[in-house]
Formats: sequence, C-alpha cells, structure tokens
Amino acid sequence: MPLVVIEVMPKAEILDPQGKAITSSLARSGYEGIAEVRMGKRFELTVEGEIDAARLEQLQEIAEETLANSVIEDVVGIHVMDQS
Amino acid sequence: MPLVVIEVMPKAEILDPQGKAITSSLARSGYEGIAEVRMGKRFELTVEGEIDAARLEQLQEIAEETLANSVIEDVVGIHVMDQS
Repeated sequence: MPLVVIEVMPKAEILDPQGKAITSSLARSGYEGIAEVRMGKRFELTVEGEIDAARLEQLQEIAEETLANSVIEDVVGIHVMDQS
Repeated sequence: MPLVVIEVMPKAEILDPQGKAITSSLARSGYEGIAEVRMGKRFELTVEGEIDAARLEQLQEIAEETLANSVIEDVVGIHVMDQS
C-alpha cells in the first residue's frame, strides 16, 4: 500500500522549548557548531488504494486539520514515498 | 548556515500508541482508507560552517546517541537541505 510522509514543524515565530533543550544539551555534551535545533513531527500514513487527486486533497486536509495544530505548527511537507 | 534534517521513527516492532490513536481518530472523523499512521520526530539542525565528512560523522552520532532512543527508535534519514 502507498506510504505518505507528512511533516509538521513549529512555526518560526513559536518558541520550541524541546528544541532549545536539545541545543543546550548538545553544547554541554561537547558537540560544537550546532547553532539551533528545532523539533517537529514526522507522520507515516499507510494508505489504501492509489494516490489520486482526491486522495491528495484528503491528505492535505488531514495534515492541516488533524496532524498539525495550526495555531503553533505548519505542515512543511507531504511526500508520496511509495506509490505501489 | 546549512540546515540538516534528521528523521527518527519508532522501530517497526514497537507499538506506537500515538499513531494508533490518530488512526482511530481519523476513522471516527470519517476519513476513509487510512490503514495505519505512525508518528515519529523530525529535527531541523542549523549548523555552523560547511558540511564536510567530519561534520556528517558528528551528525550521525548526534542522531543515534542523542536524538533517537536506540532501544525503541531508528534514525531513518539525515538530509542536508541547504548547503549555503
């Protein structure tokens, strides 16, 4: 079945405390040169049937209405990984 | 500064309760044909300097030692998005 990847990240203007904690932790662990880390979500959806225009529209709606919280997050990618 | 994306997903044999909850929620909301949802993490790292072999090795180590919990998660991708 086709696999679709949907990527969601915190909006640029939103503080990302988990990302900031990781950035500090990396510096403390001696990893140099990592200026910033931001943490978002990656969803893999296994989809029945083929990916046509109607399915893509549905997936866009799922991404924006269900997977992302549009107040603080953006959908940054919807990728069809495996069409078979 | 270069941007590197690191993708982390729960291992295939690990239950993913958040993904299962989303799968059920989509079915209840009337979205048909979504067989499975799995939820992972997407990190964006802003990196100082250019991405050379030593930097890539450091990023691989960061991904496996710090960003992913290797007991339950796999690093599924490390992508250099912007080399400038």
